[in-house]
Amino acid sequence: MEYRIEHDSMGEVKVPADKYWAAQTERSHENFKIGVGIETMPREITHAFGILKKAAAIANHALKPEKMTDEKLKAISAACDEVMAGTLNEHFPLVVWQTGSGTQSNMNANEVIANRGNEIAGKKLLHPNDDINMSQSSNDTFPTAMHICAVLAIEDKLFPALDLLIATFKRLEAENEGIVKSGRTHLQDATPIKFSQEISGWRSSLEKDKRMLEIALPELKELALGGTAVGTGLNTPKGFDVEVAKAVSQITGKQFVTAPNKFHALTSKDELVFAHGALKALAADMMKIANDVRWLASGPRDGLGEIHIPENEPGSSIMPGKVNPTQCEQVTMVAVQVMGNDVAVGMAASQGNFELNVFMPVCIYNFLQSARLLAESIVSFNDNCAVGITANKEKMHHNLHNSLMLVTALNPYIGYENAAKTAKKAFKENISLKEACVALGFLTEEKFDEVFHPEQMV
Amino acid sequence: MEYRIEHDSMGEVKVPADKYWAAQTERSHENFKIGVGIETMPREITHAFGILKKAAAIANHALKPEKMTDEKLKAISAACDEVMAGTLNEHFPLVVWQTGSGTQSNMNANEVIANRGNEIAGKKLLHPNDDINMSQSSNDTFPTAMHICAVLAIEDKLFPALDLLIATFKRLEAENEGIVKSGRTHLQDATPIKFSQEISGWRSSLEKDKRMLEIALPELKELALGGTAVGTGLNTPKGFDVEVAKAVSQITGKQFVTAPNKFHALTSKDELVFAHGALKALAADMMKIANDVRWLASGPRDGLGEIHIPENEPGSSIMPGKVNPTQCEQVTMVAVQVMGNDVAVGMAASQGNFELNVFMPVCIYNFLQSARLLAESIVSFNDNCAVGITANKEKMHHNLHNSLMLVTALNPYIGYENAAKTAKKAFKENISLKEACVALGFLTEEKFDEVFHPEQMV
Amino acid sequence: MEYRIEHDSMGEVKVPADKYWAAQTERSHENFKIGVGIETMPREITHAFGILKKAAAIANHALKPEKMTDEKLKAISAACDEVMAGTLNEHFPLVVWQTGSGTQSNMNANEVIANRGNEIAGKKLLHPNDDINMSQSSNDTFPTAMHICAVLAIEDKLFPALDLLIATFKRLEAENEGIVKSGRTHLQDATPIKFSQEISGWRSSLEKDKRMLEIALPELKELALGGTAVGTGLNTPKGFDVEVAKAVSQITGKQFVTAPNKFHALTSKDELVFAHGALKALAADMMKIANDVRWLASGPRDGLGEIHIPENEPGSSIMPGKVNPTQCEQVTMVAVQVMGNDVAVGMAASQGNFELNVFMPVCIYNFLQSARLLAESIVSFNDNCAVGITANKEKMHHNLHNSLMLVTALNPYIGYENAAKTAKKAFKENISLKEACVALGFLTEEKFDEVFHPEQMV
Amino acid sequence: MEYRIEHDSMGEVKVPADKYWAAQTERSHENFKIGVGIETMPREITHAFGILKKAAAIANHALKPEKMTDEKLKAISAACDEVMAGTLNEHFPLVVWQTGSGTQSNMNANEVIANRGNEIAGKKLLHPNDDINMSQSSNDTFPTAMHICAVLAIEDKLFPALDLLIATFKRLEAENEGIVKSGRTHLQDATPIKFSQEISGWRSSLEKDKRMLEIALPELKELALGGTAVGTGLNTPKGFDVEVAKAVSQITGKQFVTAPNKFHALTSKDELVFAHGALKALAADMMKIANDVRWLASGPRDGLGEIHIPENEPGSSIMPGKVNPTQCEQVTMVAVQVMGNDVAVGMAASQGNFELNVFMPVCIYNFLQSARLLAESIVSFNDNCAVGITANKEKMHHNLHNSLMLVTALNPYIGYENAAKTAKKAFKENISLKEACVALGFLTEEKFDEVFHPEQMV
Repeated sequence: MEYRIEHDSMGEVKVPADKYWAAQTERSHENFKIGVGIETMPREITHAFGILKKAAAIANHALKPEKMTDEKLKAISAACDEVMAGTLNEHFPLVVWQTGSGTQSNMNANEVIANRGNEIAGKKLLHPNDDINMSQSSNDTFPTAMHICAVLAIEDKLFPALDLLIATFKRLEAENEGIVKSGRTHLQDATPIKFSQEISGWRSSLEKDKRMLEIALPELKELALGGTAVGTGLNTPKGFDVEVAKAVSQITGKQFVTAPNKFHALTSKDELVFAHGALKALAADMMKIANDVRWLASGPRDGLGEIHIPENEPGSSIMPGKVNPTQCEQVTMVAVQVMGNDVAVGMAASQGNFELNVFMPVCIYNFLQSARLLAESIVSFNDNCAVGITANKEKMHHNLHNSLMLVTALNPYIGYENAAKTAKKAFKENISLKEACVALGFLTEEKFDEVFHPEQMV
Repeated sequence: MEYRIEHDSMGEVKVPADKYWAAQTERSHENFKIGVGIETMPREITHAFGILKKAAAIANHALKPEKMTDEKLKAISAACDEVMAGTLNEHFPLVVWQTGSGTQSNMNANEVIANRGNEIAGKKLLHPNDDINMSQSSNDTFPTAMHICAVLAIEDKLFPALDLLIATFKRLEAENEGIVKSGRTHLQDATPIKFSQEISGWRSSLEKDKRMLEIALPELKELALGGTAVGTGLNTPKGFDVEVAKAVSQITGKQFVTAPNKFHALTSKDELVFAHGALKALAADMMKIANDVRWLASGPRDGLGEIHIPENEPGSSIMPGKVNPTQCEQVTMVAVQVMGNDVAVGMAASQGNFELNVFMPVCIYNFLQSARLLAESIVSFNDNCAVGITANKEKMHHNLHNSLMLVTALNPYIGYENAAKTAKKAFKENISLKEACVALGFLTEEKFDEVFHPEQMV
Repeated sequence: MEYRIEHDSMGEVKVPADKYWAAQTERSHENFKIGVGIETMPREITHAFGILKKAAAIANHALKPEKMTDEKLKAISAACDEVMAGTLNEHFPLVVWQTGSGTQSNMNANEVIANRGNEIAGKKLLHPNDDINMSQSSNDTFPTAMHICAVLAIEDKLFPALDLLIATFKRLEAENEGIVKSGRTHLQDATPIKFSQEISGWRSSLEKDKRMLEIALPELKELALGGTAVGTGLNTPKGFDVEVAKAVSQITGKQFVTAPNKFHALTSKDELVFAHGALKALAADMMKIANDVRWLASGPRDGLGEIHIPENEPGSSIMPGKVNPTQCEQVTMVAVQVMGNDVAVGMAASQGNFELNVFMPVCIYNFLQSARLLAESIVSFNDNCAVGITANKEKMHHNLHNSLMLVTALNPYIGYENAAKTAKKAFKENISLKEACVALGFLTEEKFDEVFHPEQMV
Repeated sequence: MEYRIEHDSMGEVKVPADKYWAAQTERSHENFKIGVGIETMPREITHAFGILKKAAAIANHALKPEKMTDEKLKAISAACDEVMAGTLNEHFPLVVWQTGSGTQSNMNANEVIANRGNEIAGKKLLHPNDDINMSQSSNDTFPTAMHICAVLAIEDKLFPALDLLIATFKRLEAENEGIVKSGRTHLQDATPIKFSQEISGWRSSLEKDKRMLEIALPELKELALGGTAVGTGLNTPKGFDVEVAKAVSQITGKQFVTAPNKFHALTSKDELVFAHGALKALAADMMKIANDVRWLASGPRDGLGEIHIPENEPGSSIMPGKVNPTQCEQVTMVAVQVMGNDVAVGMAASQGNFELNVFMPVCIYNFLQSARLLAESIVSFNDNCAVGITANKEKMHHNLHNSLMLVTALNPYIGYENAAKTAKKAFKENISLKEACVALGFLTEEKFDEVFHPEQMV
């Protein structure tokens, strides 16, 4: 490999000749050989740094035009656009397990944008610290990048996924409107319920989760930028914080604002804990939904068998008809992952000291994994499973009419005591309620049929 | 002990003669000898059942006056008032580790209110199932009780505690307005910060946590009541769900509403997961604050020693002057407990099946412990520690002026290179920046004093 | 209430006249009004302090007989015996949420044992610090008490509970030896399995969990006592640490030893994290077992219905025959609690600083709750559910023979392709494999019966 | 891209022409677009499948030589060696979020080994199911692969890392043997301690963690292989389970054995929960150690400043001398990650049903991440931080002699009361104990110097 020599305050560093990064990135690259190629700092963070650095240049251009010239702004913007587009990803090699302030990823962005910007400008125009990091500190950029990419992950990836599955459930509700089945509580037969009602419970869960995420988002839209090293805003021009939040909003099309208290913004990750709580609520609901689906689809013969789900892979090389609920399984595994991530997010947030929290990379790594996995998991579940759910009407009908729970419908006609005797006899002798009721002489067959309408108990 | 004989559908049960509970409570009492006297179903739940049963009686009286007569309503209300007042607590012996629907605690409430109501009425007027549980099922009462007591715990206990500590921090900000100290990031000396700014970061965290709880509360104010056994509302008069939510609102003075989808309300605990996420965010912030306080108070000689905190107990039987930060320690232990509870709440919520979640007692047990502990912990921390925090001005002043970080103030006058040399010399020779700067011939003493104003770097 | 005046280095304190505790306990009681009457320091810790203080007196008597006289030892021993017996519990009012070193509970023990010992001796013989705390510090007593009570909880409470359930499963294996049923993987029908084999999986899990706890116990049997304030053993006579561990062993009948490195013993809670990992493994296994049981017992008509479990309470006031698996529900809720507790134990262990960990009360509170709940939960599950499990042989037989999975048995005779066709036809037309196979002309009825023996596929 | 057509029981599938995988891998690849390129099934699992498939071929060759011929064994072995070497990694594209049994990764291994084996053999010799999967099922292979790679990760990666850091600490203990410093408890000054003793506490923690891992390993060395689909061992030759464990042992050089109960081995992940508990204990200890190091190194001026750590990167572009403890920060972030992973491992283990646990990929993903991160984190911490720790002797000496805690040494000479007065005066007037003691007339300067030897209090 070919190298070039870069300098920083500690001396010379050899850097791969074909990479835009410089000395500080390289030092981190060498000093943190942990999870290399595996826990790379999430691309969402890199992307957010593209947005942030462009926004900072815009704000600096507005407030300090003598320092952030038109020419510089143009070069920086062009480089940042490439960062946002992901075409410079290979120039961001650092891992999550670095300094806890994310300083090194901030410097990585500064170095790459400066070098690429200079290339675009065709001259030595930009300095990583003086220009790309102007009016900023690692301590306010990394929290800002965290909030930006958390918002994008939820609004642009997770919400469309949720909308997809919500729409599928709505369609299924309409399609299955007329079907009544046996309810189940404690895994035991219970009073009847419409299949569409059962599905509406799933849908409502997702709608609720989406609403809870929505009300958590404004908290995440507060940005730390402008606080610099310790929250005092040292070295920023007046109004920079408001201006830069405006620029981020323009670039993303979302309503970001500057955080009202920068000391809080640098040290507390409470908004991420809160928003991840909403992700966990969604994970819990998805686990319940996926469990319902796989149980209802259990069988084919010896399970509940009340619904059919798409057969996507051979379930077994020897038994046709075995449809393993593999999409449900990925959903429930993702839910478990989110539960674990939630602990990491919360614990990371609890460990700040004085003017900084140095558990930020691990915090956002877990946050983003949860948001991404939930989005992709839901799309996969929707496309490969939910869209193809069909009711096994015969089984539902059979189960409904087989349920001893229906005896409650007879209470008004034969009284609780006799209804109880009817149910007990039916259970003991494994006969129908009708057979038991008639055999006990409580009702005639005709009368039984007249008053017994399970479908109307919903 | 004396007993009386009670009956239920499974036969006779011996019940302590001096207790209002009856057969079903007694069966649970005997079958679940787990955590007896320790993990008693939280009193907050008992209290909420008092509210709920009274509200149900009011709604039934409005909608089914022929069944819920004036006389019955009066007796039930009187008994419920006693439940709410806590005077019947000894009649609620059941533990958390019972049936997962909380059915047995619902029956406990039905039995106690019926028996006490009959006593008040002076006659056999009320039946646990027919009257106290009218238009209800365990499956919709327990989720309703959970939401009611979660809201009360947060609004009536936790919010006043938060307000207390926020007020204390505000006072401390005002009192310490003029004091500048050394900032710290990565536990390393950083640029100056006002002590009042540092405190404002703590206060802002609490204000943020309160706001996040506030926006989570409307979700918890949706009540399942009216859904009965499986969410279909079987056996409820039309409009019962709206009416009963109204009654709960009147009794509590809070705006509860009926849940728009009862299938969701019975099976999903997502709102509790979400709200507990806000409790966890608060716990994380409190841990950070308590850690800051104990570190700033560390010493008395060999620590940071920048603040004094009240001495509440002898820290040691042999060393006077040792003030252990015991209130900070209770706060951080409570924070750890809330982190653990959050896992239990989330996992419980994920384990619902079909029309019911049967992990409700463990869910609310953890939720309420978190809310209660945070409230009491914050009050204790406020009263026994925060109110007495005073700045050690000499130490702050000394540390501020001792910090090499201040060299940044010289950049405009001697340039970055010379400033660096100054700092390095000062560090190496353990002398002041002024001594180093003058010795290196960069500035005269007078000039140094003229340009060097750490207090203005905030 | 009547009071007496006690003194400590900070001045006078009013203490309830009828209580043995003194000034330092009272100060904690007043300064930590958090969880009063709810999260009382676990009685197991109080009990362990009785053991520890008696053991310390014995060791001091052996090594410093001039200071720990026969008379003093006798009085201390008598008072400690009462602490161990639990008769002095009301004199230990402190809560978990106190100083993180547990100092206040150590002083509580010192004060109560001294005062009660003086009462026994009939004169002012003992001083809390000089005699009861002789050769000790809070910093080595509390970790020692934690280890003692953790070992007792596991060996004396949890192991007997495990043995009980293991014995029940062994009996069930023997009783159900001949019964073959359909296996289930992915909740889908799978190849046959003996019911006794399925139960043996449950039993093996418990045996494995017990073994893992057993191999974790020696780590917990290392005691910190002898390290005093910072691990150096300041103020202890030579050999005290070995002697006191010996005394603890004699009192408890268990093999405790002194920790080889006291600096580790005061600061690290790694052994508790490790042992709680074994408790969590047990919780996970119990959750799986309880879920299996409730699913196998699901129905009575519309579930799997392969086993019967005891009916302990009326499942519903309207439907006879509904047996809710309430014991399974308490087990799974306890499992969830243990999962949450595990986070608290681990996080507490991670937060030590320098010579001490000040998250000890929260650590042991969660540890002991897990051990106690698991023990009581298992006994309750055994006595009220597992002992009464019976196979629904008809359903098992029906499901076994109904399973399409059995088609694998035909592979050697008709080939995979034709077996596949057979299964598909049977599934599609809802007929038996035999009917399908004969209808397709692959085998005669006689030949089919000759080669088709599901019971032999186990 | 070029494709070839592959077939399975569900029809045709287009597969990239240059890949060894076939239809079933491709279906999973298409149906599970979740975490593609990010949460790839860990390479350690792929590696373990190489071991397992080779071992199975060896055992089959021994027991069924007519089916597993010499020729087949040779081809399979050669292909498996390549899998183990990692040269076929690109042919294992599947993600963690697939079917919960890991079936698809087992099929991926079968397909790749068959195709590559055929290529090596130069003819169509091997069939994925009939030969590579002979005597196996996904349900016993995946648990086996999990145990194999868990053992390898701990013994071959983590133990060497631990040994490295233990050796460094031992060296530091020897080098710093004579240095006495002030102890700290509750973050407050405490009695003296040798710096080497403090380090020995760190070392002992690591040794304890290693021992706990060692005693957990035998549990992980039990292999499920031989249980096939439901644990009954259907389709395996007699003795296969013992033989295959022997073969795994030969290939790995470690003592694997066959699990005594296969029903347990397929359904319970208790050994992984237990072993991960040991990893969590290690994470907790590493967090404590890293926190101690960064606090002791805090400063350079306004912190504790008792040690120096290597300066690896410029801490700040403006302040020389600022050494951020970045290696401590990666350690503590890794610890947080392990805490989160532990929840996922435990919850995954709790969710088995009947004859299988379908949360295996998420379980092992988290387990392996923890083991790998801890290993790499410890090596990085050792190499870039611990090896360069040096005592700041002047600061330690100053702090030691500055500590008021030393007053305890005067107790025998002037009594507790006067010692207390001495300490209080010193604290209040900010003078030395000697000055205070002499000023109060308790001791002469000479006498004070004679009896006051802080260095001997350790």
